[in-house]
Amino acid sequence: MRTRIDKAPTGKPCEVCGFVENLRETGRMFFLVLRDASGKLQVTVEKSSMPALSAMCAELSPEFVVRVRGVINENTYVKLGGREMVPESIEVLSKAEPLPLQPDAHIDTRLDHRWLDLREDKNLLIFKAQTTLSEAMRSFLLERGFLELHSPKLIGAASESGADVFELGYFGGKAYLSQSPQFYKQMAMAAGFDAVFEQGPVFRAEKSHTNRHATEFTGFDLEFAYIDSFRDVMALEAELLQAGLRAVAEKHGADIERLFGIKTVVPLLPFPELTLRELYEKLEVIYGLQTPPEQRGDLTTEAERLAGKLSMDEYGHEFLFLTDFAPEGRAFYHMRDERGNPLGFDLVWRGVEITTGAQREHRYERLAAQANERGLGEDVKFYLDFFRYGCPPHGGFGLGLDRLTMLLLGVTIKEAMFLFRGPGRLTP
Amino acid sequence: MRTRIDKAPTGKPCEVCGFVENLRETGRMFFLVLRDASGKLQVTVEKSSMPALSAMCAELSPEFVVRVRGVINENTYVKLGGREMVPESIEVLSKAEPLPLQPDAHIDTRLDHRWLDLREDKNLLIFKAQTTLSEAMRSFLLERGFLELHSPKLIGAASESGADVFELGYFGGKAYLSQSPQFYKQMAMAAGFDAVFEQGPVFRAEKSHTNRHATEFTGFDLEFAYIDSFRDVMALEAELLQAGLRAVAEKHGADIERLFGIKTVVPLLPFPELTLRELYEKLEVIYGLQTPPEQRGDLTTEAERLAGKLSMDEYGHEFLFLTDFAPEGRAFYHMRDERGNPLGFDLVWRGVEITTGAQREHRYERLAAQANERGLGEDVKFYLDFFRYGCPPHGGFGLGLDRLTMLLLGVTIKEAMFLFRGPGRLTP
Repeated sequence: MRTRIDKAPTGKPCEVCGFVENLRETGRMFFLVLRDASGKLQVTVEKSSMPALSAMCAELSPEFVVRVRGVINENTYVKLGGREMVPESIEVLSKAEPLPLQPDAHIDTRLDHRWLDLREDKNLLIFKAQTTLSEAMRSFLLERGFLELHSPKLIGAASESGADVFELGYFGGKAYLSQSPQFYKQMAMAAGFDAVFEQGPVFRAEKSHTNRHATEFTGFDLEFAYIDSFRDVMALEAELLQAGLRAVAEKHGADIERLFGIKTVVPLLPFPELTLRELYEKLEVIYGLQTPPEQRGDLTTEAERLAGKLSMDEYGHEFLFLTDFAPEGRAFYHMRDERGNPLGFDLVWRGVEITTGAQREHRYERLAAQANERGLGEDVKFYLDFFRYGCPPHGGFGLGLDRLTMLLLGVTIKEAMFLFRGPGRLTP
Repeated sequence: MRTRIDKAPTGKPCEVCGFVENLRETGRMFFLVLRDASGKLQVTVEKSSMPALSAMCAELSPEFVVRVRGVINENTYVKLGGREMVPESIEVLSKAEPLPLQPDAHIDTRLDHRWLDLREDKNLLIFKAQTTLSEAMRSFLLERGFLELHSPKLIGAASESGADVFELGYFGGKAYLSQSPQFYKQMAMAAGFDAVFEQGPVFRAEKSHTNRHATEFTGFDLEFAYIDSFRDVMALEAELLQAGLRAVAEKHGADIERLFGIKTVVPLLPFPELTLRELYEKLEVIYGLQTPPEQRGDLTTEAERLAGKLSMDEYGHEFLFLTDFAPEGRAFYHMRDERGNPLGFDLVWRGVEITTGAQREHRYERLAAQANERGLGEDVKFYLDFFRYGCPPHGGFGLGLDRLTMLLLGVTIKEAMFLFRGPGRLTP
């Protein structure tokens, strides 16, 4: 039975398997570097004493998959962890044609051959870090009694605006692909679930070609009841992200620094926060950013970027909460205070907005009025019904797992996704 | 700040919130039962000593959501855990119209008002148990180094047969909804990820109205490399299910027995197994089931049901592995032995097939030949390419989380899903 390279013992027989990462021949020796998902190991074959294995090595090429049985010895001359395996047998499990992908290929060419591109150490680390991040965030929530939701992606009505929604035929009628589990996680509040989260795909039919957007990505959404204000939501999000990043830093911090040159910072609590008014004042005073008054009710692209710099310069913190947005740019279901201001926030990490969160309007009459204000009354009738038979006050937010991964490692969205989907990209 | 009912302390001031489950008035008292997701609590209001709160209680109706501040006392006369709260204040957080749903309503009417239906204790327990099951299975895999995958649901080619696939417009072209992450979890094997799992939606455009099928459900899929045979896959699956069911039994076993009348059995290892030939022989001898020879290469509906009975009668075990299926009914990518027999299995739990698993054919030429045999060559070309540049031997299986939940609790698929999706059901 095969042992993972990182767990293979020294000094006694074992079996390791992996891709041939590298193959080097000298006059007396073959040196083979074996790679599995856990690590790398040098296999050393002396030609004179192992003629059959040497003949075998001469037949190998990079990216062949092999099984090697032998004994691992310590050898301080070996760079790869100071260990090498002296093999008793080498067996080819899978042959490889010459690779059609150059290491310096353009990202779109790499995506065409994504399964080869993902063999890079850096790319494997992306998904190890993402796995750790999302598991740590889930564990944090499960410990606090959150239930996991799997809401439908096939929905009967185009949610919210109807723009940018994928439509499909459905047994003679029409269905749409969900853009967000928002309405359904709120349904869980009306059902008395108290606290829920969902991790799953969300779909956006946006014909946008930026480094941040995809037509499908993995959302991480949560909603919880009996909050006193949207500040409870902000506090939970800060703790959640701290827990996620702590796990990543502990498990992969050193590798991330080595391969991506980025330090994984575990953020301190509480996260700093500013109102939008304060933000624009500071950005003007400190960086000279001019923003017309009519744009100051929302976060402009330039202000978003500079908010990251401001947070580091002023607070030495990678995160910054922003509050007091103008109602026009916020969803109709955000609760508003007595002056009509939305009780919600955005969160910026490293200069990119990663969340919109809010306390939701749970009172049927007010919610219906806010929907009608936007001309949405009929479209969201099924949703408004959730609030007619008792519903706890609640709030929540959504994160994009891919966007978090992207910012964590300083890569583009195309690199942060296992398989990116955009307007021109449906394969492999 | 609100305290969960199950964690609310006795003997000192606290705040609890919840739905008014029940409201009873006697000559001297109001008795109010409060319900949150963690439990229930009686609130007792004496009319003579608390006239203002009594007036408030007279305005309440079932399913109102309230916040109650007060002190919880022990009182052995109270059925609900021997505790009652004497309130200092009661605040209405949300009013409720009279419920439009009767408790004995037909399942389809209940689904129309799913957010009310889910308020039943039984229904909340379904999602508590599902959350525990899926978290325990994930933890099991993460401890073993599995990475979590989020493969795309929007795909460029109708996978496998093209039947029962949802099609949608995609920026002037066409896309399809993924029926399974099969090809992509295998892509991860070719990428050298070693071991992956994915939990996410899968879509089937089947116009079927059984108690088991849905057009969208939550798949739990995994794949891992460097196996010696499909028996490694069977062994892992048995351990995984044992871990999942152990967690459910420990956390919810008593509640499941109380509300569903079902004992949650933690299965012993190894699970019993039979070849299909042995199964049909036993079913004939023991239960008199006649099956024509031409049907014995696959599992008939009647044999599936009886396999559950047989496993209990013969082995006292709820699970039964079945092997040695005929190749015709198995996917083209299952590895076959030298006689052409697929190296895979089904797993039956409580008389229902829950998995098909196998070692996969990772050798490009053989896999291409097996695809061509089915006339699939062109459709799966992108998939076949995964195997041209080195790919470890690997295997895996898929489970349906909803189907597991359904069998765990003895309910129908419509009840086991947060929101069921079928040919006639897209709302709420």
